[in-house]
Amino acid sequence: MVIMGIDPGIAIVGYGVVKYEGNKFTPMDYGAIRTDSSTGLSQRLLYIYNRLEEIIEKYKPDAISIEELFFNKNIKTALTVGHGRGVAVLAAARANIEVFEYTPLQVKQSVVGYGRAEKTQVQHMIKVILNLKKTPKPDDVADALAVAICHGNSCKMINLVP
Amino acid sequence: MVIMGIDPGIAIVGYGVVKYEGNKFTPMDYGAIRTDSSTGLSQRLLYIYNRLEEIIEKYKPDAISIEELFFNKNIKTALTVGHGRGVAVLAAARANIEVFEYTPLQVKQSVVGYGRAEKTQVQHMIKVILNLKKTPKPDDVADALAVAICHGNSCKMINLVP
Repeated sequence: MVIMGIDPGIAIVGYGVVKYEGNKFTPMDYGAIRTDSSTGLSQRLLYIYNRLEEIIEKYKPDAISIEELFFNKNIKTALTVGHGRGVAVLAAARANIEVFEYTPLQVKQSVVGYGRAEKTQVQHMIKVILNLKKTPKPDDVADALAVAICHGNSCKMINLVP
Repeated sequence: MVIMGIDPGIAIVGYGVVKYEGNKFTPMDYGAIRTDSSTGLSQRLLYIYNRLEEIIEKYKPDAISIEELFFNKNIKTALTVGHGRGVAVLAAARANIEVFEYTPLQVKQSVVGYGRAEKTQVQHMIKVILNLKKTPKPDDVADALAVAICHGNSCKMINLVP
């Protein structure tokens, strides 16, 4: 199965597309969609939407995996990131692809085996699992790959993949 | 000019389409788009997007007006409403319609003439300005009409409309 992970946002949206077959993850594509804060909100959202649509069309993922967001301080940030996340979920829905949401705890548990793992541990494991030479940068890309892997492991657990 | 106001959300999205000509506002259509909380997030966003797209296609507004949101307590609410607002702004952007944002203060100032007006005063003025028999319900619909009127008045002030 092909899984696309998305780390939503407005300034940077991380994405990672992986193939999960025979208990093995292979990276297909990953990167960051960036928008400039000098551009208006509607044009930033439109650009993010169009790029995500292109990637979805190219790789035709079987599932889209996205982190549940938690904020404990900045309401303005939550609102802004909510805009980006809404557009990402919509891109999946319009392509008729099911969206799966995982908490940061579930992602860490799944990738590192420990729910309270540090960011660097998650990034290290992404490199190992996907057999990459370097840790994908920025963090948003590693996070997108992590949530994609989390969905693969979750499907494995419930026997959705052989 | 035709102005569409949107009061964004997830459970209820208010919309109001008004014609503004010769210093007079005429209502063309208004109502609420409702989604059920038992439906998943992606299907709710898809439904909101599709309905907004239909309304935009039908009335071809010259501008879309939407309130800037402020929250002072619930981060989870901000995040959720952010999803809905992102999808609304995207619907405008994909139809190539400019989006204008106004603060609640600007909307009240514009509709009632007093930035700290009560909700009921705003609703009363909506009824008067649009020559309606009843106050549009729920509140989200009145709010959408208010932000549409605010944009008309703002254009008038800067001489964008005759």
